[in-house]
Order: sequence, then C-alpha cells, then structure tokens
Amino acid sequence: MTETLESPSATIISRLEVPELDELPAELRQQIAALERQLGYIPNWVRAISVGGAHTARFNTYLLALLDPNSGLLPYADREILATVSSAENGCSYCRLNHAGSLGEALGDHRLGTRIAIDYREVRELSSRHRILAGFAAKLSVRPGDVDDADIAELRELGLSDEEIFEAVHVISSFAAANRFTIFLQVRPDDQFFN
Amino acid sequence: MTETLESPSATIISRLEVPELDELPAELRQQIAALERQLGYIPNWVRAISVGGAHTARFNTYLLALLDPNSGLLPYADREILATVSSAENGCSYCRLNHAGSLGEALGDHRLGTRIAIDYREVRELSSRHRILAGFAAKLSVRPGDVDDADIAELRELGLSDEEIFEAVHVISSFAAANRFTIFLQVRPDDQFFN
Amino acid sequence: MTETLESPSATIISRLEVPELDELPAELRQQIAALERQLGYIPNWVRAISVGGAHTARFNTYLLALLDPNSGLLPYADREILATVSSAENGCSYCRLNHAGSLGEALGDHRLGTRIAIDYREVRELSSRHRILAGFAAKLSVRPGDVDDADIAELRELGLSDEEIFEAVHVISSFAAANRFTIFLQVRPDDQFFN
Amino acid sequence: MTETLESPSATIISRLEVPELDELPAELRQQIAALERQLGYIPNWVRAISVGGAHTARFNTYLLALLDPNSGLLPYADREILATVSSAENGCSYCRLNHAGSLGEALGDHRLGTRIAIDYREVRELSSRHRILAGFAAKLSVRPGDVDDADIAELRELGLSDEEIFEAVHVISSFAAANRFTIFLQVRPDDQFFN
Amino acid sequence: MTETLESPSATIISRLEVPELDELPAELRQQIAALERQLGYIPNWVRAISVGGAHTARFNTYLLALLDPNSGLLPYADREILATVSSAENGCSYCRLNHAGSLGEALGDHRLGTRIAIDYREVRELSSRHRILAGFAAKLSVRPGDVDDADIAELRELGLSDEEIFEAVHVISSFAAANRFTIFLQVRPDDQFFN
Amino acid sequence: MTETLESPSATIISRLEVPELDELPAELRQQIAALERQLGYIPNWVRAISVGGAHTARFNTYLLALLDPNSGLLPYADREILATVSSAENGCSYCRLNHAGSLGEALGDHRLGTRIAIDYREVRELSSRHRILAGFAAKLSVRPGDVDDADIAELRELGLSDEEIFEAVHVISSFAAANRFTIFLQVRPDDQFFN
Repeated sequence: MTETLESPSATIISRLEVPELDELPAELRQQIAALERQLGYIPNWVRAISVGGAHTARFNTYLLALLDPNSGLLPYADREILATVSSAENGCSYCRLNHAGSLGEALGDHRLGTRIAIDYREVRELSSRHRILAGFAAKLSVRPGDVDDADIAELRELGLSDEEIFEAVHVISSFAAANRFTIFLQVRPDDQFFN
Repeated sequence: MTETLESPSATIISRLEVPELDELPAELRQQIAALERQLGYIPNWVRAISVGGAHTARFNTYLLALLDPNSGLLPYADREILATVSSAENGCSYCRLNHAGSLGEALGDHRLGTRIAIDYREVRELSSRHRILAGFAAKLSVRPGDVDDADIAELRELGLSDEEIFEAVHVISSFAAANRFTIFLQVRPDDQFFN
Repeated sequence: MTETLESPSATIISRLEVPELDELPAELRQQIAALERQLGYIPNWVRAISVGGAHTARFNTYLLALLDPNSGLLPYADREILATVSSAENGCSYCRLNHAGSLGEALGDHRLGTRIAIDYREVRELSSRHRILAGFAAKLSVRPGDVDDADIAELRELGLSDEEIFEAVHVISSFAAANRFTIFLQVRPDDQFFN
Repeated sequence: MTETLESPSATIISRLEVPELDELPAELRQQIAALERQLGYIPNWVRAISVGGAHTARFNTYLLALLDPNSGLLPYADREILATVSSAENGCSYCRLNHAGSLGEALGDHRLGTRIAIDYREVRELSSRHRILAGFAAKLSVRPGDVDDADIAELRELGLSDEEIFEAVHVISSFAAANRFTIFLQVRPDDQFFN
Repeated sequence: MTETLESPSATIISRLEVPELDELPAELRQQIAALERQLGYIPNWVRAISVGGAHTARFNTYLLALLDPNSGLLPYADREILATVSSAENGCSYCRLNHAGSLGEALGDHRLGTRIAIDYREVRELSSRHRILAGFAAKLSVRPGDVDDADIAELRELGLSDEEIFEAVHVISSFAAANRFTIFLQVRPDDQFFN
Repeated sequence: MTETLESPSATIISRLEVPELDELPAELRQQIAALERQLGYIPNWVRAISVGGAHTARFNTYLLALLDPNSGLLPYADREILATVSSAENGCSYCRLNHAGSLGEALGDHRLGTRIAIDYREVRELSSRHRILAGFAAKLSVRPGDVDDADIAELRELGLSDEEIFEAVHVISSFAAANRFTIFLQVRPDDQFFN
C-alpha cells in the first residue's frame, strides 16, 4: 500500500490514462514546462488532465491567468481565498492540499492557509473582507441560485467594482470546473504537498 | 411589467453593468461578431458576461470549441445532451431555454429537446446511450464525489475512449462554470428563444 | 424513438394501464368530455389517471373547481401562479409544460409563463404579489414545516382573507397530489404543448 | 401554558380563523356530523380546515372514501399503513398521532400502530407486504421522482393490480395534500388522542 | 408477527447479541440493578448496549449523571427537553418513546411530553425558554457547524452561565452518542412505554 | 490578525470561558496532567471543554479508554480510522487536524493520515478493511438510520465479533459527542499541529 506512494508510476496518479509528455499538443507542453520552472516539479494535476489535449490547453490558458500573482484586478490573496474555499466546498482533496500551501504563502501564514482549506467557517481570525469573499465562494460553488442582490451589494460595499466582482465569479467558476476534473480523475496529491 | 420585455435596455439583461461593445477587448468583440453571424442576433449571455473582459474571452475560446458542431471527439448530439442536462441540474433558466433549442436541433426533434431540458429522467424515449450520458452529467454536476469506477466503466462500455470520456468531463465542467455566470448575473432569456 | 411520438398508442402515455373510455365511471367520462370540449382534445393526464376510477373522479371534482377561471376567491392568474410554481418545485415535467401554457394565457404573456414554469426565482419581472405567492407555493410544496407565522402575516398584508389564504393552500396541496400522480405515471406530455 | 390544553377556545386549534359550524356549507356540516357520530366528538382537523368551505367539502368527499374501512380495493390495514407512513414522512404531528390510533386499531395492535407512526424503518416486526407499502409511501411522499419501474414491479409482485396500485397512489397523494393542510394550520392534537 | 411482542426473547431486542447479566462487568451490573430499582423493570436499552462491556459502563456513568433529576446545574425539565428534542432530531424511535414519558413527567403534562417527542416545532404552547433550548438541541444535533455566536448570546440572555450552557451541550452530545447506539442496535421499545 | 496566533491568551481558544487549571475538579486536573506528560503540552481541546467540570471528567474517562493504544479490542489503527473519518464527516476542523497526526502515526504514514483526514473517499490506497470501517463511520455519523443489516454483515465478514462491532460504534459515537463539543466551542487548533 505505502510502497506505491514512494515510486508512483504515471498511471496511478489518475483514474484515466496519462499520456506521455511528447504526445501532447505543443501549447500544453509549454504550459507544463512553465509550471515545472515555477514549482521545481510537474504537479500531478496537469499531467492527469492532459488527457484532454487541446481542450485542456485552452482551459489552462483561462485558469492560469486567473491565478497569476502578477496580474488580475483583485489582490492575489483574495483570489487564493476564493480558490481555496471553492475547492473545499466542492470537496476536492487534491485542490485543498494544493491551495492550503499557495494560500498560506499568499497570506504569509501557513497555519491560516491550512485551516481555511479545512473549513473557513471555524477560523475566527479571518478578516471581514476575507470572510465575505469566502462566504460568496461557498454559496456560488454549492447553491448558486441562492446568491441574491444583497450578496452583490455586500461585495460592492467592500469597494469591489463590477469588473472585480465578475473576476471573483470567474475564479470561483473556474474552480467549479477544475475541481470536477480533479475529483473525477482522483488525482493523487503531489508528494511535495507534504514537505 | 411586460413592457420591459418588449424593449429591454442593455442594463436589464444582467445584475451587473453591461459594457458597450466598443469598450471590449478585440478578441471578445470578434467572438461576439461570430455569434451574431451564426445566430442572426447577439445573445444576451455573451453581452452579460463581457463584463469579465479578457477572462471572458479566454473562457469563450474554451467553451465554444467544446460546442462546435464541426469538431470534437464526441458526436455533437452527445455534447448537447451533456450541456443541456448539466444546465438543468445546475438550475440555470437561461441555459435550459437556450439548449432546449440547440439540443432539439441536434436531435432533429424539438419536443424531445424541450422535454430533456425540463427533466431527462421523465423522458422514457431517451436512448440508452443518451440516458447514460445524461446520468453522468447530472452526477458530475451536482455530486461529483459520487462518481465511482463503475460510472467510468459504463462509459467505456459505450465505446468511449479515455480522451472521449474526458471531453465529456470538459463539457459538463465548462457548464459548471458557464451556468454559474448566467445564474449569478440572472441573464434575461433571449426573445428569440420563444419563437 | 421519434416515431412513437407521432402515433402514440394508449399504453405508452403512462406507466400503468390506461382503461378504455367506455370502461370508466359515468362521472369520469363526463369530466373527460368536458375537458375535450374546452381544449379541443383529451389531455394525456386525465386518460392516465383514469385508472383510479371513482377515486379519480372525486379528485377531479376537487381539482377542477380550484382551477376554474370563472369561480374561486383568488384571481385566476394567482391560482395559476400557485399551480405552476408547485408543479416546478415538485419536479413534474408534464405539469410544468401544461401550466407554462395556461399561466402564459392567464398573464397574457407566454414568455413569462414559460420562464416561471422553469424557475420563478430568476424572473426579475415578477410582480411583488406574484413573487410572494410563488415563494409560498415553493415552501409549502417542499418544506411545509418551515411555513411560519411571518409567512401568513405576509399573505395577509397582500390583502388576502383567511378564506383566500386557505384557497391558496388548497391549490398548492391539490398539486402536491396531482403532481405525484403524473410523476408516478410518467405521463407523456401532450403533443399540443409544443404548438 | 397547560390551562389552554384543558379548555381550548376554537381559535387556538388553528393558525387561521375557525368558522362557526352554522356558517358552513351544508355538505361540510353533514361530513362533520357524520364524523362526530363515528368518533363521538368532532376532531380538530375538520373544524380547522372548514375555513376552506366548498373546496374543503369536495376534498373531504375524496379523502373519506379512500379511508372507508368498508370499501376500497386494498385491505383497510394497507391503506392505514400508507396514510400513517405518509403522515410521518411529511412531518405532520397531528396526523401521526391520529393515525397511530386508527392504524393500531386496523392492525389490532396499538403498540405497533404507535411505533409505525414514529418510524416504520425501526419496526423489525413489520410484515414484508407492509414494509414494501411503507417504503413506497415514504418515497412517493418525499422523493416522487425516485419511484422507478422496479418499485412498480415490486408492488405487482405483491399481487396488486394496476387499479390497486393507483389506489395506493391516491391514498399517499391525498395525504400529501391533507398533511399540508394540517401542518400549515398547526392543528392542535385532539385531547382524545391521549386517552 | 404480534406474538413476538408478547414474549420477546432476549435476542430480539437488539441487532447484536445480548450478553447474560452475569457475564457483565460488576459496574455495569450495578447500573442495571439501580435502573431496575428505579423503574421496576430493566429497560431494553441498557440490556442491548451492555454488549459494550466496560466502555458501556463508563458511558452510563457519564450519561446517568446528566439526567439525574436531583443534581445538575440546569433544571431537570430543561435537560429532558434537550434529551427529547435531540432524540427526535436524531431519529431514534426508542428514545422518543422513552423520553416522551420522562419529559411528560418532568413537565407534569404527558400530552405535552408526547407532542414534543413528535415535533417540538408544532407545539405552540411551548414556553419561550423551552423553545430556545429545543431549537438549540435541534441545531447542535443535526447541523452543529451552523451554531453561531448569536445562538450562544440567546442562551446567555436566558440567564444561563457558561457552565450551564456547556451542560446543555453535554446533554445534547451525550444523546448524539446514545441515540446512535439505540438506532444502530434497533432496540425494541419497552412494553412499559405503552401503558 | 496573525499576532493572536503567536501569543494566544486562554480566552481565545474557545467561544466559552476557559477556567483556570486550579479551579477544576481533581479528576479533570489529573487527566490534563496525563495528557501533558504524553504530548509534551496541554492540548487546547481539553482546556476548552474543562468548562464542563465533572461532566467533562466523566466524558474524558469514557473517551480516553476508547483511544488507548495499549488496550481495546480493535487494533489501534482501526480505532484511529474510525475517529478520523467521524471527525471529518462531522465537520470538526480541530479534530481533523489532530487525528490527521495521530492516524498518520498509527499507520506509520503521515501523508496517508492527512489525506484520510481530508476525505477517505479519494484515497485509492486505502485497504479494503479500512475502507469498510471508514464507510461505516461515515454512515453512522451522518445518517445513522441508514445503517442496515448488510452493513453489520459486512463488518462480521471482516472477522469482527459483536463486542468489536460495538466498540467501533462506541468510537464513532464518542466522536459524535466530542466533535460537537469542539465545533460548538470553535476550539483553536494547537500550534503543535503545524510542526
């Protein structure tokens, strides 16, 4: 049982087959190479979803821009809160472990990143802004029809413009998609999450 | 009440502001122009989500390829079944009315398109293949963690390759995102849906 | 698949057997004849539930009075809102398609009838009175124990007398029954719904 | 608090006003008189729902025939099982207490009547026939869309004809309506239930 | 079917085997003897859970102190309200029947005890204090994560100290455990409940 | 925000007041001292629940025996699986973080402990025995009424005696209680969880 954790072959990181890197479209190979440069290793999620070929490359283009620390309308920490809470509410183990780390870095507090990835509701230290964003992510992820005019008004009271509000909607909705990929494929968490 | 339906101004098609066409990034303007050529009018959904700017343009690139009748691994009717059932299960009124029409066309049977958009479960005439795809779309949309190995085996027994299975996952997941946009914005159904 | 839609035999409109008209109790035959005069055809629902014989005749007597445009305490459009929203919340495909039409006629706006039959929550044009009645129908249909004193106060503030409030309860509750008949029998939607 | 239980005025048996007997339509007065002859007192439910006037009289005509021990296709005990379990699943306190008694009488075992009114699932002594009927009542009451062909086949295997199956559907559905009346009105349980 | 009710053997009071009294640890035998002295008979629940040996003895020590009429911080009737509502919300038939009786005695009103054991929400006569305690028991039993600071503030406004609030939490939580024992074992209600 | 994490005062580890150690009953002080000897520090949970005084001491006596690595009928790793999955299903952040660690130690694999604390369903490496125990813990924690005879048979097929099955029930049920304490109090995770 535990041996497989030490030397995983490509096939056990996913419920579907995992194509070799050199079978992939050029755009997808470049995205993977960029992630490897950034992280120092190739995360399992991008290997696993590469079975989607050109569709996956187009999705990555969409997603990676939303999570770029150096662009975007909303502060990076806001977008990481939205990504992390969406992943928790959608029930994606891989993404919770992954974003516990990246949110921890964005907040400069790894304990907080981990606790929010478990359940933001029990984190009394959460700032009011982050609590509102987290609640919005939870509602739009799980009960989108319940988002009402008052929820939008609350976001505007935080100072968000309509463009920023819709960027938040994009982050949450991109994780509605990405979490379904990772849950469906049962992607094995990266060894690097546990260091 | 009904007057607003006759001459809607731009602002009432969405809960957020709707940018003028000439304020939009070039890529988004081209996508809108292509939709107008194809349909004979600009659908409300693309006007409403254009508040997302470049993010929206990237999402459209991803989504429109998944719904292209002339490309894709799975037959177009399969992808329309997945899109329609996902929209129904996610509770998106706009998308149900929209895909009732496009699914009806794909099936060559508008009654069936409408009935599936209401609830595929009560459509006894559904083919076995379409029923399995519909059930998969419903489960991955609403309870993704419940998709088990037997569900994947069932798709493989229909003859789907792993690439085709993941294309189905992409269609369902792109609607997990798109439905959340349209529900969040409460996009008003196009007048053209009712002709 | 589509052939069956063109020339349905009696048996495929229901999961139970459908008695011949001349086997039915006289009262039920008269109710069916009256519906045929009114609509120009015999709707599938009344054929399908006629397997209940005298019980069904007694239920029809109860139901048809509640939906009579020319009697009743509440305006007919109010009662059609209650019937349509109850049918949607109970998940009855046949009744949603049926009442999308009759509500559309009652409102003089078929688009609105269809949209309310899909989901009243996303219809921003709904009047305040109709929104309150729709919310009451949804709650009493699905979570009756959650109806509280404040809900009753809200109906009284619309000017409803206790007799009128209980007529609304009768309409909603008669559809709690009627929808269960039609869902149980999987009654095939009438061809006439699609013209 | 407890004083009100000893000498309740008419108004506290219901959340809506309770009309005087002599204000009621003749048919309703006769139904109430017949119940009084049968039970030795006028039960609160029929006083409370009499605010519905002629609608209520028509409903009673429908309901009372379904529960008549001396007519009906299905044995009376079967119909009482269906009524009791539906009332429990719909969450109606008044009806559970009421049918705990009448079911107990029908079964000749008041302990069993009470236990089924609490939760049939924990009553291991339930006969196989009654367990199947109880399960059917629970499903059609709460998740009607989940009733599938196998459920119908199971009822047929018990020997039920299609007419008998639909009588069962009528009993369950009439309680979908009646329970909503009683829950909505918060009818106070009769003192006689506790003797 | 009914014969088994008249002369139950030890084995049919539980889904697991029921040890003989003389096989039990001394502490458990003493607890059982004390219950027999108090009630005049040995209740089925304590026989059924005695399969847990020393674990069960330790649990009983914890539970019985919480329900001791002659000790505790909160009035005994408060603790019985908490126990009864928790049992109802957790869906334990045995415990509802059992505490309908003991709550009835604590309140000096057996009708009220029974009605609260069915559903406290429909008991309009409930005092404000008991309604708040009942609502707290229901929420902590079924949706513990929803208990918020306002719920705690409401308990404090009733005059409860923090020690008393946590005694309430202990009562509710001990029934989260005890109800699971009894539901799991499907303990047969005592004949004495029906006298 | 983060400062509070560095030097927490006693009061912010809980929503209720936290008594000084020397105010506590002797039995509780001894339990706390034993935990400090074992762990090298006093965990927040035991400080927080000490507001329950003698009730809490009795609960601890019950709980700590169930989790003793050196006693118990079931292997310690089995009991840690039950405790961890129950905590996850009940939604207790503190307990998930706590038992991620202790389960990791029991399994000799901290990655696996953490992944099971997130969601056992996505851990494909789980042994068949642990998967069955985890599924049982999830069902008894959240939907106890759904545990059926087949679930008990499955446990017996693993070789569990009735005494061992009920020990499993005790572990799961003790966490139904303990998780409610910790969720209610919003106990702050120990700093030591993050090393």
